[in-house]
Amino acid sequence: MTDLDALPTPSLLLDRDRFVENHARLATHLRHLGVPLRPHVKTAKSLPVIRYALRDQPGGVTVSTLREAAACLDGGIRDILYAVGIAPQKLADVAALQARGADLTVILDSVEAAQAIRAHRAATGRGIPALIEIDSDGHRAGVAPESAALLEIAAILGEDLRGVMTHAGESYHCVTAEAKRAMAAQERDAVVSAAMRLRLAGHAAPVVSVGSTPTAHFADDLVGVTEVRAGVYMFQDLVMAGLGVCAVDDIAISVLVTVIGHQAAKGWLITDGGWMALSRDRGTAAQAVDQGYGLVCDVAGRPIADLVMSGANQEHGILSRRDGAAWDLSAYPVGTRLRILPNHACATAAQFAGYHLMVGTRLTGEYWERFNGFGARER
Amino acid sequence: MTDLDALPTPSLLLDRDRFVENHARLATHLRHLGVPLRPHVKTAKSLPVIRYALRDQPGGVTVSTLREAAACLDGGIRDILYAVGIAPQKLADVAALQARGADLTVILDSVEAAQAIRAHRAATGRGIPALIEIDSDGHRAGVAPESAALLEIAAILGEDLRGVMTHAGESYHCVTAEAKRAMAAQERDAVVSAAMRLRLAGHAAPVVSVGSTPTAHFADDLVGVTEVRAGVYMFQDLVMAGLGVCAVDDIAISVLVTVIGHQAAKGWLITDGGWMALSRDRGTAAQAVDQGYGLVCDVAGRPIADLVMSGANQEHGILSRRDGAAWDLSAYPVGTRLRILPNHACATAAQFAGYHLMVGTRLTGEYWERFNGFGARER
Repeated sequence: MTDLDALPTPSLLLDRDRFVENHARLATHLRHLGVPLRPHVKTAKSLPVIRYALRDQPGGVTVSTLREAAACLDGGIRDILYAVGIAPQKLADVAALQARGADLTVILDSVEAAQAIRAHRAATGRGIPALIEIDSDGHRAGVAPESAALLEIAAILGEDLRGVMTHAGESYHCVTAEAKRAMAAQERDAVVSAAMRLRLAGHAAPVVSVGSTPTAHFADDLVGVTEVRAGVYMFQDLVMAGLGVCAVDDIAISVLVTVIGHQAAKGWLITDGGWMALSRDRGTAAQAVDQGYGLVCDVAGRPIADLVMSGANQEHGILSRRDGAAWDLSAYPVGTRLRILPNHACATAAQFAGYHLMVGTRLTGEYWERFNGFGARER
Repeated sequence: MTDLDALPTPSLLLDRDRFVENHARLATHLRHLGVPLRPHVKTAKSLPVIRYALRDQPGGVTVSTLREAAACLDGGIRDILYAVGIAPQKLADVAALQARGADLTVILDSVEAAQAIRAHRAATGRGIPALIEIDSDGHRAGVAPESAALLEIAAILGEDLRGVMTHAGESYHCVTAEAKRAMAAQERDAVVSAAMRLRLAGHAAPVVSVGSTPTAHFADDLVGVTEVRAGVYMFQDLVMAGLGVCAVDDIAISVLVTVIGHQAAKGWLITDGGWMALSRDRGTAAQAVDQGYGLVCDVAGRPIADLVMSGANQEHGILSRRDGAAWDLSAYPVGTRLRILPNHACATAAQFAGYHLMVGTRLTGEYWERFNGFGARER
């Protein structure tokens, strides 16, 4: 165990206890509802994190890129749901991952993509299992559960149809607990009713998959759902805290920075952590409490009252009081180490190659690499 | 030469001719003003790009991280200005790079940092050349040219003082040509007057360094300045186009994406390029023309009238008409390849591991790797 001063800055820290507690909380909640978790790799993109999240689950993961799929397969994880609508051009890479042993399921919401899978089967004699994406909230992609397209796509997929999935992205705008519970019910109802229609039309549709971190935590009834997907829940972030999904003290990742200058007349501490370290994500800008580019903590991880990262250049962070007033900066001289809690865990973590593990205020010495990038191959 | 269809999506493309023209334009302008260019590595972070930008220049570069410094040194580039205020904890890494052959200059704007350099000299017998950062526009860091701190810091640095530098970051808010010219003059005047004060106080101060992409293009007199730093100029982007620094047709990087779905009732094309590919940078949001997350082009790089990337999830882009109206999406079926011009070249390029080179509408087959990350060492 060594001190945080041993690290260069900016560096990405992962508080192991908070991560473990975040996982236990959601896993326990879903166990009470009788539904397993298919952890989403997109936030952590790191095998030790994912392996931990799978320890009390059936073993399947969700990915957002074929790069994540390939990395999971390399790590021995075979049951993979690629939860971004499949492009026809990617089917060859999907088939190559299958040939290496992956049980890889894709998703789609169009006749064209379904026809591409049917053509793949006709050309190769091999299927690619697919879920039909359902639009449960008008947020992004998917077909409506009551649409003609649902049955049309299912008919084209035939034996490659494995079921349905949805993502209630609008849950990120649900402030009250009641609204999040209602959104979880809406998410569930959309896929359960879609699966029912498919079964009435003679399709098996065994998989009924839902997921977003807010709905996963607030769902109180998941009858008919076979799995829940979530990724941000492992680390949590200020957006989730602003939504009441977690407390600020639950946030497991932070960026270690160093004070490199003062602008005393403006009340600014300047640090070496800019948007290249925190990302440009301003997800709390539309929330009741705007956290700027992040909430400033001391090296022990305790928030410093009213101090936020109010500005960001590429490699410069500007820390100031929330009210913009000047204050006495002398307690934070050049060289002071601080930690910034991020707005959005997925975006901030993606700016780094890996995590420095810590327990309490000490480094464990472990470094957990991330797999960034997009394609199944390196380029 | 191969077709763009050979690439997975999302991928980062670099149009070689546009990059070459962008470099020629600024290099020619500065040659007329009699001042050399010290290219900033922070945008491209790729040796072939930097080597090209150095072909008609003295050979020194600017970096924003020690990772960039180490990568340049590995590539045989020794004259390096690290243009982010030095943290005392980084001096050991700076000295290690010097020991490997780097002529590495740091910057600072505080008594504490100057004392750290003085202490380093006392402890090791070796100096670390430093520029004092001057605040020319209230944008970020630096001491005022007329401040007492300037001479105080210089006296502490003693023989390690090499001169002064500034960055007029406020030039990113200068819309008219007149405003950019005035900001370039203000940037110049701040450092030239600071250098004059240092020389009157008995310091040599041979280096007088300025730089931002807008001021570099619009400066009409740089008497007293010894070098100009710029990075974005190589690639340009929508923010620079919105400022009138370049035309949209000058933008040399773009992100290749694939249409993965339609939401016809909303007029949305959904692609596999989200904010993980384009970044969360919304730099045009405050400009006269808000380009969303980017401007949509066909595979030949021609902008498609009124189509912008209006929304971004992690791995999903939403393309829609600027006025939000529904339209006939059928010309862009699932599987269609499109290219997105970015708001901010530094931020978008940083989301990728390298550039696929293209000439015209064809790939050259070259792939130029980037060096992402922060520290002098890998971790």
